[in-house]
Amino acid sequence: MTPSKNRRIVLAARPQGEPKDSDFRLEEVDIPSPGDNQVLLRNLYLSLDPYMRGRMNAGPSYAAPVELNCVMEGGTVSEVVESRSSSLSPGDVVLSYAGWQEYAVAADDMVRKLDPAAASVSTALGVLGMPGMTAYTGLLNIGQPRQGETVVVAAAAGAVGSAVGQIAKIKGCRAVGIAGGPDKCGYVRNELGFDACVDHKGSSFAHELKAACPNGVDVYFENVGGAVLKAVVPLLNKFARMPVCGLIAQYNMSISALPSGPDWSPVLMASALMKRLTIRGFIVSDFEPQRGEFYREMSAWFREGRIKHREDVVEGIENAVGAFQGLLRGRNFGKLLVRMKR
Amino acid sequence: MTPSKNRRIVLAARPQGEPKDSDFRLEEVDIPSPGDNQVLLRNLYLSLDPYMRGRMNAGPSYAAPVELNCVMEGGTVSEVVESRSSSLSPGDVVLSYAGWQEYAVAADDMVRKLDPAAASVSTALGVLGMPGMTAYTGLLNIGQPRQGETVVVAAAAGAVGSAVGQIAKIKGCRAVGIAGGPDKCGYVRNELGFDACVDHKGSSFAHELKAACPNGVDVYFENVGGAVLKAVVPLLNKFARMPVCGLIAQYNMSISALPSGPDWSPVLMASALMKRLTIRGFIVSDFEPQRGEFYREMSAWFREGRIKHREDVVEGIENAVGAFQGLLRGRNFGKLLVRMKR
Repeated sequence: MTPSKNRRIVLAARPQGEPKDSDFRLEEVDIPSPGDNQVLLRNLYLSLDPYMRGRMNAGPSYAAPVELNCVMEGGTVSEVVESRSSSLSPGDVVLSYAGWQEYAVAADDMVRKLDPAAASVSTALGVLGMPGMTAYTGLLNIGQPRQGETVVVAAAAGAVGSAVGQIAKIKGCRAVGIAGGPDKCGYVRNELGFDACVDHKGSSFAHELKAACPNGVDVYFENVGGAVLKAVVPLLNKFARMPVCGLIAQYNMSISALPSGPDWSPVLMASALMKRLTIRGFIVSDFEPQRGEFYREMSAWFREGRIKHREDVVEGIENAVGAFQGLLRGRNFGKLLVRMKR
Repeated sequence: MTPSKNRRIVLAARPQGEPKDSDFRLEEVDIPSPGDNQVLLRNLYLSLDPYMRGRMNAGPSYAAPVELNCVMEGGTVSEVVESRSSSLSPGDVVLSYAGWQEYAVAADDMVRKLDPAAASVSTALGVLGMPGMTAYTGLLNIGQPRQGETVVVAAAAGAVGSAVGQIAKIKGCRAVGIAGGPDKCGYVRNELGFDACVDHKGSSFAHELKAACPNGVDVYFENVGGAVLKAVVPLLNKFARMPVCGLIAQYNMSISALPSGPDWSPVLMASALMKRLTIRGFIVSDFEPQRGEFYREMSAWFREGRIKHREDVVEGIENAVGAFQGLLRGRNFGKLLVRMKR
């Protein structure tokens, strides 16, 4: 019943600013065959994440860029459909990094078998996977939230932000979210249990944020940059910590086309100095040794219902580009996944 | 032989931008008398330091601003000329915070007795005092220099910068200074033993700085901001540390008159993220518990000739304002002190 063709999305051009449809190309190619110690994977879910915008650029970043005319990279949950590995059998479900496509071949030591009985397998791409671990390690290692402190996070309805605020609550903090629109803000407050959530699209955003943080801000988990950052910095308390996890508001920005002035960097530096801030960038792999600890603690909270999550599922690889474009504009509501058509 | 009058400099107006002569006023007032457990001090040396610019502003900073028509604050080395304290006698030399004036009364528990035999007493305002401890604690706690790494510091001929680079050398690092003009750069290289020193006034500054840091920059001890910061950030290595100690280039800047664009803050934030930087502000009092450790280690290095220093001494309280204006423009060469006329 396996179809004979693999549909995949390749990077056709390096986006200038916002990624356009023409920067990608949907291709139909033959399904590859696994070699020794390899498996053929049928992808069930593809994770779409903001970091992917960086991989589309030629410049230096965390990791090498995706080559032109090559498949866009991405984490997947996949089913083994053919195995030439002694450790994996057809029907096994694995976490892999198989990219924006329906089928892929992977070495057996590059995938991790999942237990579908433990949790819905898609959580391996979200709350119990990379986004959850990003929230957990960045907040706890760099943010170091202490009981009674105020933790602010933007994109609070998203995969990382929702986990940040809920972990902050578990640690006894006041959790203040920032999200786009009343539906997301209501969800963040009512379903996720944040103490407050402020709509960054509102005209009185900075004022409302200040009102939501009567004791100032001790931890700002930075995943957006831009106007939100500029609204938060004046509220930071002395010795506040700012884990810098992402900057989605500026991912489409070119260094040769910076925003017009004034130059706000002196404000940021003066705040760092006078408030004795710690501003520290990280990516989740910096904390790889904590994977076991993260998984044990986070999956326990998840089972206990103390950590909730929400998925925004798009059907079909042909809709991945549009979904990703929406992600950069904040259109998703929850962890964004592409479910492959069966 | 004690004169009957005290000359002092008060803050006459809050400076807008660069401090003008008219922002200060030289006054002659009666010499005060000490009460119980107080001493009358004759100041020998007044320390002039960049942080004083912040005290002239009304806005929030580390500490309360100097009130208008009050004496400018500042660290001093002073001689006890009259004592109503059981712990201090006339002739004792003390470290105090007696401000921009010739005489002052101080409580005996607010001064610290110095040993003139141990080191020239003026070092208590420089290499063995606040500036030296600023360099020591900021570099070691936040910069965390490791053998073989590259440490960059600006104002390298100054009180803090000169100590930063020399401590970096002691820790086995490559020390690269930035200073204004060939005389200072020559001194930093030849006398202080930095591996390189780059003239920030040169037209090819950024290019020369890059050439001086062939392995990139692991620690940037930030005490200037502005153009130097913008030249250093592209050279920072992954996981580089930036202790933020001062921002002299922007001390005269008003938050309501930021530099024109483009807005460089997205570059700074993107660098923090992609390079996993740690940017952390501090002031020396944050590390007060390390005072004993600092003094033991630094004075040993000083005695062994491993830490050198240079003083730039101006004569007479009436010249303090001009000297301070020069400090903000980088005109001093070494630790800036005012020696009171006898």
